[in-house]
Amino acid sequence: MTMEKWRAAHRLLRYSSKNLFDRQLNPNFRNSTHLSTSGMAYNMNRFVGNLWGVHCRCLSSVVTATQRNPLFSTINSDDIRYFKEILGEKSVIQDEEMLDAANSDWMRKYKGSSKLKLQPRSTEEVSQILKYCNARCLAVVPQGGNTGLVGGSVPVFDEVIINVGSMNNIISFDKVSGTLVCEAGCILENLISFLDNQGFIMPLDLGAKGSCQIGGNVSTNAGGLRLVRYGSLHGNVLGLEAVLANGTVLDMLGTLRKDNTGYDVKHLFIGSEGSLGIVTKVSILTPPKLSSVNVAFLACEDYISCQKLLLEAKTRLGEILSAFEFLDTHAMDLVVRHLDAVRNPLPPSHNFYVLIETTGSDETNDKEKLEAFLLRSMESGLISDGVLAQDINQASSFWRIREGIAEALMKAGAVYKYDLSLPVEKMYNLVEEMQIRLGSAAKAVGYGHLGDSNLHLNISTPQYDDTILAEIEPFVYEWTSKHQGSISAEHGLGLMKANKIHYSRSPEAGSTLEGFEPLSPLLVKVSYFLGGPSFAYIWDHLDGKASIDWLQNPFAA
Amino acid sequence: MTMEKWRAAHRLLRYSSKNLFDRQLNPNFRNSTHLSTSGMAYNMNRFVGNLWGVHCRCLSSVVTATQRNPLFSTINSDDIRYFKEILGEKSVIQDEEMLDAANSDWMRKYKGSSKLKLQPRSTEEVSQILKYCNARCLAVVPQGGNTGLVGGSVPVFDEVIINVGSMNNIISFDKVSGTLVCEAGCILENLISFLDNQGFIMPLDLGAKGSCQIGGNVSTNAGGLRLVRYGSLHGNVLGLEAVLANGTVLDMLGTLRKDNTGYDVKHLFIGSEGSLGIVTKVSILTPPKLSSVNVAFLACEDYISCQKLLLEAKTRLGEILSAFEFLDTHAMDLVVRHLDAVRNPLPPSHNFYVLIETTGSDETNDKEKLEAFLLRSMESGLISDGVLAQDINQASSFWRIREGIAEALMKAGAVYKYDLSLPVEKMYNLVEEMQIRLGSAAKAVGYGHLGDSNLHLNISTPQYDDTILAEIEPFVYEWTSKHQGSISAEHGLGLMKANKIHYSRSPEAGSTLEGFEPLSPLLVKVSYFLGGPSFAYIWDHLDGKASIDWLQNPFAA
Repeated sequence: MTMEKWRAAHRLLRYSSKNLFDRQLNPNFRNSTHLSTSGMAYNMNRFVGNLWGVHCRCLSSVVTATQRNPLFSTINSDDIRYFKEILGEKSVIQDEEMLDAANSDWMRKYKGSSKLKLQPRSTEEVSQILKYCNARCLAVVPQGGNTGLVGGSVPVFDEVIINVGSMNNIISFDKVSGTLVCEAGCILENLISFLDNQGFIMPLDLGAKGSCQIGGNVSTNAGGLRLVRYGSLHGNVLGLEAVLANGTVLDMLGTLRKDNTGYDVKHLFIGSEGSLGIVTKVSILTPPKLSSVNVAFLACEDYISCQKLLLEAKTRLGEILSAFEFLDTHAMDLVVRHLDAVRNPLPPSHNFYVLIETTGSDETNDKEKLEAFLLRSMESGLISDGVLAQDINQASSFWRIREGIAEALMKAGAVYKYDLSLPVEKMYNLVEEMQIRLGSAAKAVGYGHLGDSNLHLNISTPQYDDTILAEIEPFVYEWTSKHQGSISAEHGLGLMKANKIHYSRSPEAGSTLEGFEPLSPLLVKVSYFLGGPSFAYIWDHLDGKASIDWLQNPFAA
Repeated sequence: MTMEKWRAAHRLLRYSSKNLFDRQLNPNFRNSTHLSTSGMAYNMNRFVGNLWGVHCRCLSSVVTATQRNPLFSTINSDDIRYFKEILGEKSVIQDEEMLDAANSDWMRKYKGSSKLKLQPRSTEEVSQILKYCNARCLAVVPQGGNTGLVGGSVPVFDEVIINVGSMNNIISFDKVSGTLVCEAGCILENLISFLDNQGFIMPLDLGAKGSCQIGGNVSTNAGGLRLVRYGSLHGNVLGLEAVLANGTVLDMLGTLRKDNTGYDVKHLFIGSEGSLGIVTKVSILTPPKLSSVNVAFLACEDYISCQKLLLEAKTRLGEILSAFEFLDTHAMDLVVRHLDAVRNPLPPSHNFYVLIETTGSDETNDKEKLEAFLLRSMESGLISDGVLAQDINQASSFWRIREGIAEALMKAGAVYKYDLSLPVEKMYNLVEEMQIRLGSAAKAVGYGHLGDSNLHLNISTPQYDDTILAEIEPFVYEWTSKHQGSISAEHGLGLMKANKIHYSRSPEAGSTLEGFEPLSPLLVKVSYFLGGPSFAYIWDHLDGKASIDWLQNPFAA
């Protein structure tokens, strides 16, 4: 397809498909089993394993639908022959059962109908695939461990699935600098094990670590359990290699801690959810492993005490603080009621609970420091009760409470899940306002990573009800927006929240990933180039036509 | 100027000015006092204060010259009238003495001839200025504290200087999250003092802190003394507000630790040296202040021991390590010989010295930990001697050695300075190879932030000599490039290294900021839009014409 044709086609499209994004389908669209896409897999995977086949009842935002762009080609036998030639027979998957797994997301909320999954083993192969797809106008979707929760890792229609899981080599590890260089398909847990033997850890850890891949982690800017300590991937990823839609390989695979030569373009790829290119290699700064871990489980009588305790912990525990999680009494009730062998280690009942973890290099010193902090906080009345884990089993049982909440919520009935970043001081107001709004019809439950200002707001009801959803949305997004929060804290936008981004992002700063606002010129230029036929397909749906429209103005003939 | 005219003009220019970049002027260009632009101000400012008027003899890469683009307007009385109208009389500076200071950089290496300095007090005023300059085709240069070392903060010719120093308000500070929001003109030291009263610190600290401003720090991605502990600004800056060349205000001023809604565009502005827009507000994550600081000064017999010691320190000191600096015996000799009241705390003579600092929350525990580490390292032979500071004065005297090196080098004669990032294990090889290359004609001195893999390579000679420079360059850049290093570790490219970026960056990843390589499509698109007349002026010189050329292909009529 020439540039001219491509442009003309888009000019057409922007009139014909303008309203597709807003069309909210029946929430029972696709099948009757709906799973939330917020914040669950990360925590639950640790305990319930693979959820395939488990009948769950939690529900959330309705699926956003769209239509296949007819300008994209469909695969034919020549395409298959070409792919077999460059990749070999085994890496060209047409088997229905295997395709079914690759077409469906982990939560079984989104399902595509791709007829072809490719498994490249090198950057060169990824480049060849993309170059070919671009020329043939075949849509593609990049896929890693397929543990994403927002419909970003599966096809929407019949896109060619490019799964990088076979690119799973560790390329190098430098013990002096702690720099790991590896291919995108490396499973997070394998990297953790490899580093453990070297005396290092990954700066990120997720419940999904057994399946998720580093390329996907980087592409979605995954958060997880160690963010409060080691920061986000923007601080830890030192370099990237990525392949653009036209097959160009972008070598940004630096291993240097400091490099101030020009724009740091790799940051655009961190969290861009594959829309700018396929990440093929990653260079990441890994911290040394520390030997001493302590966990305390505490009770606070009000939310303001939780906030103050966080500030105290940051100051007093400073360099050894590695987690600061909170849950409300409703979350505790659910866990105790619905999960076997889980009990509240403190006498009931308190309004809030906090889990604090420290990680350091000296067992005795760290424990002394934590004990002094706890004593002080008890004396000042910030905590009303608390217990310090005496061994690894007790520590695990405390974590089990926090990590079991999502599972307990699913057992309790239907659940509407939201994963929000909010200023810490306002965070719990949303839970309270939501409860007032919902009255006795549903229970608003609040928990999450307080240390990262990340709230998991869950609305629990006996069964799914459209009128309850209408009470929750768009109120929850509007409230978050009004308080300068983010509607996607740890996860990406994917298809799920593609048309919600404007709640968290101004048009100038790129809110129009989702559609119908004037697009940031900065972004459209990036997207336009990278959005050749293949990626533009994804882009087309996420981004809408405004971008293409904008593009006509300054450049068109 | 219409888009068409603009384009046509550039088409012309790319033929006429192709070779200007490569023209290396007589090193005595401009005046006979040449100062290095690498790594000096950051360290020296602490001790020698303002260098204005001091006659120094150090030299480095020759100045890259270029010609004024005649397509840009010159200011007239209407412009002045307009600026006075929107900013008020006092914020429109035409006084020669004041302009002279604003036209010259701190090191007196670069000097522009601007006739106008504007001092906006708000984002709105910055926006109005840029919008006007853009329409009038007036070139601009953004300026903060003007402490930059690479010719990036002063005009090249007669650009309008937009100094944001009057925008110096702290907007908010949230003690719970540690998030500081402030205007770009806040002086770093003022922010440090403000936070100190709140029990927090800035995640960056520089020798230039008394003058440099946070907007400039962010625009140049300043490194400094705390990077080994708190990481780069990419990890600590939570949000930005910036004004583009056409006056558009980009609101990316989030205060959230986690926000995965779309591209994180702010990262492009971190380290882009003002070429994409003027940073007007910054939101930054600040760590709590810790009470216990310890400093040790150690001797190692070989470079491999320094490396091993770094690894040990990262593992054993882990969470409390806050600095790991090294210097070679030549650096120590210079300091002891040229600086008053500086002495080597260890009996001479050793081949390498290491300064280790720890910062933590518990004096007793931290000291015990450091002592155990030192004992162990002594027993294993990694360190051959060492001393632990007993009080703040002794700690300062250790730091004085490390921070006095640049000053001592200047007193010793001429010095050619390079600020490089290199893999730790190869870093010192460059110093050794350089010494062999130079023979007895000059002394190669190595020191720097070993914990960040950042080498300051300094070549000391009695006087400046062209033949020595020819021995050093391009060898030093080629060597750095061959070992996947960066030719600009802590500082920007500025005008100084504008035509050197290709040593550290592939064309696809944007090396062509400097000129004559095929430009990264990603970057040209960003640059093109933002490079309206005003910014394109800067861009024009840094970027060359290839970008504009490239742009013609897909879009032109």
